[in-house]
Amino acid sequence: MRVPSEASGRLSDAWRFCVGTGRFELALRRDYQDSLALIQREIGFRHIRGHGLLSDGAGVHQPYEYAGARHVRHSFTYVDQVIDAYLELGIRPFVELGFMPSGLASGDQTVFWWQGNVTPPSSWREWAELVRATVAHLVDRYGLDEVRTWPIEVWNEPNLKDFWQDADQDAYHRLYEVSAHAVKEVDASLQVGGPAISPGSDEFLARFADFVAGRSLPIDFVSRHAYTSGPAQHVPFGVHQTLAPASKLLEQFATPRRQLAGGPLEGLPVHITEFNSSYRPDNPVHDTAFHAAYLAPVLAAGGELVDSFSYWTFSDMFEEQGIPTSIFHGGFGLLTHRQIKKPTYHLYAFMARMGEQILARGEDHLVTRDGDGRVTVLAWAPADVTGAPAVDGHTVRLSIPIGEAASAFELRSSVSEEKGNAWAAWRELGRPSSPRPRELDVLREAAEPARSHRGLPVEDGRVDLDLRLDRHEVTLVELTPVVDRTPPWWDDRRLLGLGEESR
Amino acid sequence: MRVPSEASGRLSDAWRFCVGTGRFELALRRDYQDSLALIQREIGFRHIRGHGLLSDGAGVHQPYEYAGARHVRHSFTYVDQVIDAYLELGIRPFVELGFMPSGLASGDQTVFWWQGNVTPPSSWREWAELVRATVAHLVDRYGLDEVRTWPIEVWNEPNLKDFWQDADQDAYHRLYEVSAHAVKEVDASLQVGGPAISPGSDEFLARFADFVAGRSLPIDFVSRHAYTSGPAQHVPFGVHQTLAPASKLLEQFATPRRQLAGGPLEGLPVHITEFNSSYRPDNPVHDTAFHAAYLAPVLAAGGELVDSFSYWTFSDMFEEQGIPTSIFHGGFGLLTHRQIKKPTYHLYAFMARMGEQILARGEDHLVTRDGDGRVTVLAWAPADVTGAPAVDGHTVRLSIPIGEAASAFELRSSVSEEKGNAWAAWRELGRPSSPRPRELDVLREAAEPARSHRGLPVEDGRVDLDLRLDRHEVTLVELTPVVDRTPPWWDDRRLLGLGEESR
Amino acid sequence: MRVPSEASGRLSDAWRFCVGTGRFELALRRDYQDSLALIQREIGFRHIRGHGLLSDGAGVHQPYEYAGARHVRHSFTYVDQVIDAYLELGIRPFVELGFMPSGLASGDQTVFWWQGNVTPPSSWREWAELVRATVAHLVDRYGLDEVRTWPIEVWNEPNLKDFWQDADQDAYHRLYEVSAHAVKEVDASLQVGGPAISPGSDEFLARFADFVAGRSLPIDFVSRHAYTSGPAQHVPFGVHQTLAPASKLLEQFATPRRQLAGGPLEGLPVHITEFNSSYRPDNPVHDTAFHAAYLAPVLAAGGELVDSFSYWTFSDMFEEQGIPTSIFHGGFGLLTHRQIKKPTYHLYAFMARMGEQILARGEDHLVTRDGDGRVTVLAWAPADVTGAPAVDGHTVRLSIPIGEAASAFELRSSVSEEKGNAWAAWRELGRPSSPRPRELDVLREAAEPARSHRGLPVEDGRVDLDLRLDRHEVTLVELTPVVDRTPPWWDDRRLLGLGEESR
Amino acid sequence: MRVPSEASGRLSDAWRFCVGTGRFELALRRDYQDSLALIQREIGFRHIRGHGLLSDGAGVHQPYEYAGARHVRHSFTYVDQVIDAYLELGIRPFVELGFMPSGLASGDQTVFWWQGNVTPPSSWREWAELVRATVAHLVDRYGLDEVRTWPIEVWNEPNLKDFWQDADQDAYHRLYEVSAHAVKEVDASLQVGGPAISPGSDEFLARFADFVAGRSLPIDFVSRHAYTSGPAQHVPFGVHQTLAPASKLLEQFATPRRQLAGGPLEGLPVHITEFNSSYRPDNPVHDTAFHAAYLAPVLAAGGELVDSFSYWTFSDMFEEQGIPTSIFHGGFGLLTHRQIKKPTYHLYAFMARMGEQILARGEDHLVTRDGDGRVTVLAWAPADVTGAPAVDGHTVRLSIPIGEAASAFELRSSVSEEKGNAWAAWRELGRPSSPRPRELDVLREAAEPARSHRGLPVEDGRVDLDLRLDRHEVTLVELTPVVDRTPPWWDDRRLLGLGEESR
Repeated sequence: MRVPSEASGRLSDAWRFCVGTGRFELALRRDYQDSLALIQREIGFRHIRGHGLLSDGAGVHQPYEYAGARHVRHSFTYVDQVIDAYLELGIRPFVELGFMPSGLASGDQTVFWWQGNVTPPSSWREWAELVRATVAHLVDRYGLDEVRTWPIEVWNEPNLKDFWQDADQDAYHRLYEVSAHAVKEVDASLQVGGPAISPGSDEFLARFADFVAGRSLPIDFVSRHAYTSGPAQHVPFGVHQTLAPASKLLEQFATPRRQLAGGPLEGLPVHITEFNSSYRPDNPVHDTAFHAAYLAPVLAAGGELVDSFSYWTFSDMFEEQGIPTSIFHGGFGLLTHRQIKKPTYHLYAFMARMGEQILARGEDHLVTRDGDGRVTVLAWAPADVTGAPAVDGHTVRLSIPIGEAASAFELRSSVSEEKGNAWAAWRELGRPSSPRPRELDVLREAAEPARSHRGLPVEDGRVDLDLRLDRHEVTLVELTPVVDRTPPWWDDRRLLGLGEESR
Repeated sequence: MRVPSEASGRLSDAWRFCVGTGRFELALRRDYQDSLALIQREIGFRHIRGHGLLSDGAGVHQPYEYAGARHVRHSFTYVDQVIDAYLELGIRPFVELGFMPSGLASGDQTVFWWQGNVTPPSSWREWAELVRATVAHLVDRYGLDEVRTWPIEVWNEPNLKDFWQDADQDAYHRLYEVSAHAVKEVDASLQVGGPAISPGSDEFLARFADFVAGRSLPIDFVSRHAYTSGPAQHVPFGVHQTLAPASKLLEQFATPRRQLAGGPLEGLPVHITEFNSSYRPDNPVHDTAFHAAYLAPVLAAGGELVDSFSYWTFSDMFEEQGIPTSIFHGGFGLLTHRQIKKPTYHLYAFMARMGEQILARGEDHLVTRDGDGRVTVLAWAPADVTGAPAVDGHTVRLSIPIGEAASAFELRSSVSEEKGNAWAAWRELGRPSSPRPRELDVLREAAEPARSHRGLPVEDGRVDLDLRLDRHEVTLVELTPVVDRTPPWWDDRRLLGLGEESR
Repeated sequence: MRVPSEASGRLSDAWRFCVGTGRFELALRRDYQDSLALIQREIGFRHIRGHGLLSDGAGVHQPYEYAGARHVRHSFTYVDQVIDAYLELGIRPFVELGFMPSGLASGDQTVFWWQGNVTPPSSWREWAELVRATVAHLVDRYGLDEVRTWPIEVWNEPNLKDFWQDADQDAYHRLYEVSAHAVKEVDASLQVGGPAISPGSDEFLARFADFVAGRSLPIDFVSRHAYTSGPAQHVPFGVHQTLAPASKLLEQFATPRRQLAGGPLEGLPVHITEFNSSYRPDNPVHDTAFHAAYLAPVLAAGGELVDSFSYWTFSDMFEEQGIPTSIFHGGFGLLTHRQIKKPTYHLYAFMARMGEQILARGEDHLVTRDGDGRVTVLAWAPADVTGAPAVDGHTVRLSIPIGEAASAFELRSSVSEEKGNAWAAWRELGRPSSPRPRELDVLREAAEPARSHRGLPVEDGRVDLDLRLDRHEVTLVELTPVVDRTPPWWDDRRLLGLGEESR
Repeated sequence: MRVPSEASGRLSDAWRFCVGTGRFELALRRDYQDSLALIQREIGFRHIRGHGLLSDGAGVHQPYEYAGARHVRHSFTYVDQVIDAYLELGIRPFVELGFMPSGLASGDQTVFWWQGNVTPPSSWREWAELVRATVAHLVDRYGLDEVRTWPIEVWNEPNLKDFWQDADQDAYHRLYEVSAHAVKEVDASLQVGGPAISPGSDEFLARFADFVAGRSLPIDFVSRHAYTSGPAQHVPFGVHQTLAPASKLLEQFATPRRQLAGGPLEGLPVHITEFNSSYRPDNPVHDTAFHAAYLAPVLAAGGELVDSFSYWTFSDMFEEQGIPTSIFHGGFGLLTHRQIKKPTYHLYAFMARMGEQILARGEDHLVTRDGDGRVTVLAWAPADVTGAPAVDGHTVRLSIPIGEAASAFELRSSVSEEKGNAWAAWRELGRPSSPRPRELDVLREAAEPARSHRGLPVEDGRVDLDLRLDRHEVTLVELTPVVDRTPPWWDDRRLLGLGEESR
């Protein structure tokens, strides 16, 4: 029996500071907004980050000819619709400057099914004007106090050839310099940062730090990404990939702070602006209970290492590999199209019910208390990446300090291979690609966590918990001290009106 | 293993034809309408019946003096608001004519905390005008085709002194005669009936039938009530009562048809316009899992005996014994204030998911199929009224014909002493009388049925079910034939990207 | 041409600090809440005050016998539902302690159709416990920081025999003393006050001040009411009354501050906890355009005299004289049942669009500017109470400072005898008492203000307004400085594609 | 004074049978659905038709390699989301088969900013399978009874090179033949038709009729388009065009029926599957009051000539020329982004309030009566296309039969250059491209029709109307016979309580 007394401190908000999204204009969709509304109600992220703000689909950069000369109109028709919707939903942009509008591109290399152009600008002046006009418009419409809270990140994964022509770091440095200056020209208090690199490219960050420091460029935060999957083994409309253990994610989180230590950028906020197991939007591992158990220790501990780590992405409304052909297709989303909750959704929803104060933490649990005295336990079964059979019956035993009450009310919510697992139900239904309304209802019901409750005795101010976990279970236990208000005349045994003798 | 093959026929709608409600003007309340909206979405009753349409609180009968004479204005300010709301919610009135407006009463005897006057009219002419004006107004506003579908019942329980001064049957006969004529003067196709008597008064019905037949009065249906509780053992804000077995309810249902057989009213529709276990709105048995198990056989079989049986009532928003002092207080409602679902709510919601065709029925189960081939099983544990401990582990074994599929998808939903039981959670919480928002959330979560699902093999076109029931469990099993659409390239064992050798 | 340059200062929030409501439990109704939601969206009151919190209909005081003794349960089933709803709608209680629960009353005198008991308590101890338990419950549920902002007023119009048995001032003083102490026992920072007297009883306030000061009782504010109508001339379901000029309302507002000056209660906040023209809920003057014009100068100036003045009441859902027999019936409401806006509603909605800074004020206008540079003019035609024909064509001419813009956009909204006047439309419709859905739509459309807009030239930083007002018109003019963003290539004259020659 | 007595017959539903929309996947957007919901509430179209069901953005045609061979998966992820939403909103598809999925195209010619491929299929077999699979899926999901009511049209404007490679009529004939057979293979009762040609290509239809008849192909309806604009005079982000008089639209409507008369396709339903003034989505004429007055006679009379004529399009959410850079930009929509109503919106909303029975029609008016006796007059001022100044003060005088009532209630709603004209307000606001929330509110208010009402005397069962119309005004007059229910004791002159002498 572990007595969780050592750990302490406040639970950081890093896990909910940001969440990822598909490209900018997908935010105009109703399904997207319905999903985000649900997520904000039950989880409550602070910021949202995705690609494509400056790509053609958002319509910001619109060149035209007039009186014999080229001009550019900066247009915010969709930008305003999207950001208005975000703010209404209680979430703020984490701005990513990219990709290149085709009218400003120096080449025609694109990335993704939706063809984001990834070449440098044909005119650095026009790029600077585009950034400045965009940021100035945001400040004008939403106010400086608001926009000052939105981090602005320059480009995405410039260390990869797919995302930045030739992965040309010098060109990225120039892009950063021009962009950072353009942002700060609007207002010096705005936050700008980069380089948003993918895993496995630590030297890129080192060179970037030197460049920024060497030229005394403005920089307010440093960003990178984290993934643990191996190479894609393709099948039609899907992939399989091996995964490294989840601890590798935490190691990736830890890298930038360690790398910057002692240098000129030491102490800057570090944002993991994307993380997930697999970087593929068609890997069914994202849909599984395994995935929630795999990420549970990451959510529980990540906030110790970075200022934020942003799950990539909140919704399967996402089109980088084309339009999904089935309701479950291995998308990144916490939610599928039509708002079916995946186990990882619940991991986040469980985190959202944790208290502010950490009472204990361990390799399979995290215990917190909130201001009202409610104690919350998040516990998880092991998620093995080597193909060993999932453990059925992992136990977590804890002695929880609950205070003066005579009893405690326990509410337990669980997802696992069997429970709160719509993907399992979908397989049992024969994997319908476009479920009918009744099937959707079944999937939504199957997606709800299993819940149970009971009264527990308190002894010496403590409650003993002995949790048995199913295969890949993630469980949330909420303990509330109870005041008994049963009146003196009441006796449940008399419910059926039977006399003393029959009791 | 029982093979349910004998039973057949269609499942009657009698169980959902009507539901009871607190007095008329309570329908103006938001909590009432929120509850009714939820119930209509998940259960879908056809009609709703309650007291007080003509009592002072609805404001229909408004006498005044003008030019030295007495006049009456018939006013429908609230009547229209309530019935507009009902129709919007997809439910129609089952009209009850009563009680007496104080401006028309011949005495001052009242019933209930809200003081419904139960004396005969001081002017039979003015009563006739009141009935005629009210029905005419309904026809004018809602159309004859609509109002023709609303049964109109004369008064409530005139066989009891509490509800009709001196329980004077002759006076009731006059009331019926005057009222029935007034209704038919508006339109001969409108449905009128009575006598809405309480249990234990069969001779009242016999005399009523003779009276109606003897004077050739219009009558379109016959009505009575059914309850099974013994005398009230009072405690503050509550009662205990013994209960007769549920089969006694079915016996009461059966009485009118049998009694009228061979007489002039033979073959008239019979409506049980109120039924429940206890007739007290402060008996906690209404809040229990026992109650759902107790009523399950009644809902499953009642339609064989009568044209409707109306659960008294849908909501705890009800004030016959004053204003409830606690969220759980033994009210009649399927829902408490603030929409916490009681186990009996789920019994009704389960019934609403049954199919049209009966495949089998037994003392602990009912099996149906709908037009899409979905087979639905309702099963229940025994509910003993003698104080014997509840059975834990009652089993129901069935062999279900499912058709050609290779497998079936089973979705099971259950309520019992432990599951889907907000009352149990409320006790564990220490019985808070006015729960805080967070406690309400907990109670609503605890009130949801436990759900599980799995794939079942089909052999020879049948599925074998072996259901184990918890204490006082009522369970719904939905079986859907499955078409497997898994593509040939897909193998769940490769989820973690591991090769042939590791599988 | 008046140049509004002298006036200055900020527009006080006194006009929206509070609004009146029918008795407590009416707040449970959906129509009530729908109306309040609309009002909060378009007007936005801060507090709401009405009678009946402690009357039987709210169910707080519930005596019972147990173990041979009398006890009282304090129950908050409805209190919580109502206040939860208020806070959700963004409005806070202005608590009125009253009337007497029948189980605690010393006599049976009641007021109103709904029979509020107005006798002193039979036990001062039990009254103190009732107040303390109620306030303590509110603090427990909503938090001290919240409840501290709710003024708590002791009783209503104790200077009138209808509202307080024998209008016994000594008994009121005892009630105040006991109540004020009970409130402060919960927390000393809570605000308590009185005496909530009706007009024409200034000596009551003087004696009350002496009493409070003489015994050093806690007191945080002083309250009274203001009305201007003469005696009721009854007709069936209505009254006619003469009215004093609106300036008499302002005189009544001014009285307490003047009366308390120099005494021990000098400087206390003064709340006019009820005001209106007529104090009758069946005087059709409340439904008219006259009424809006009559009250316009009161709303524009009242904030100079008191800390709040609370319109009695926001909705016709109100039952002091019984249940209204017609959609328009002279109720106090800004809205009728079913949310038809009266002209006085728009007067309030216009006030809600005024800016914070006062630029000018006069006997027929008020001019403000908000932080964005928008200038707002409220102007009104005279409302003569002597029966002289209403003036058609009253003019208000103003020169408004607008700043640097080349032009200004004017949006004008008006209600008058002809415009934005559902009552006029209702008369033309033949005064249907219970309008059908289509008629309700017509009335709601007719209730919308007439709106017009145009561009106005700016000269020397000013706009000249020359407003002509219809009979009993109240008009809101909103002026916004315009930046012209028409591109150089655009010419509206070419809309139909015709060449230079045709322009 | 014209006495409208000659005209008769029922008002056809042709004007609301169908409405146009931007490309298929735009229907996933929230703004689109919000607009459609508003339109369905206030107008109520039956069907909706647009391009792109089979283009890449809808994701239906998804080729893949497996086991060394090419396969195609037909995927309905977005199709189901869109059509589910349509049916929820009470509107049904008018299916257009097109354009070509890039994976099936024989060339790379595209049309529009969003690059719809307009080349014939590379495999006619695969095209047939695509059509058959799509239609079969719709029947499977929505039921044959439902889909049978959805007309299915083959391609769009194949007579134009921009829409069909080389405008190759033989290739279109083959496309039609293959497609029509594929549809009928699913079910013979489904409706298929074509050729959806643009104006000015009558010979195409003649040849098509010969082809279809010659080969005895299935055909259930014939379709074409109608527009009246001249060539585009380009300016940045916009065009000017001359317009032919509106009567030319009616002439185009009349053509197919006349052309087919006497031939094998005589009597087939004729659908004008697109019509408007200008065919450009960037011509500001669409935003004007002129436009409503111009189209009024077309809506009033078109139903005499065809089975439907479908306004192109309901919303400015439309991207054929790229992403609009300003809230008003000359889009086709009845509504702008964010639901600002254009005058033409109101023309449709007025039509939706007309009765079923035609009482009169003329060059500037249409008079109808509905089942409740309400008489409705639509009248319009002239819309001159030659550049002459708009007439201010056009009059329409009518004598309307209203029946027995003593008076009539007139509700008049108008849009014109000054009233109900958000575009005018937008110009006065300085043409903000991306209006702030407050400006959007102003524009929405300015977009509401001006409304007035009055009581009118009835003489000899008739009401005399003398309507004066502003510049480009379209007005709706609704006349309701009135029953006066004023009680005998009521006199409005006593409102202020003044005695006999002052009346």
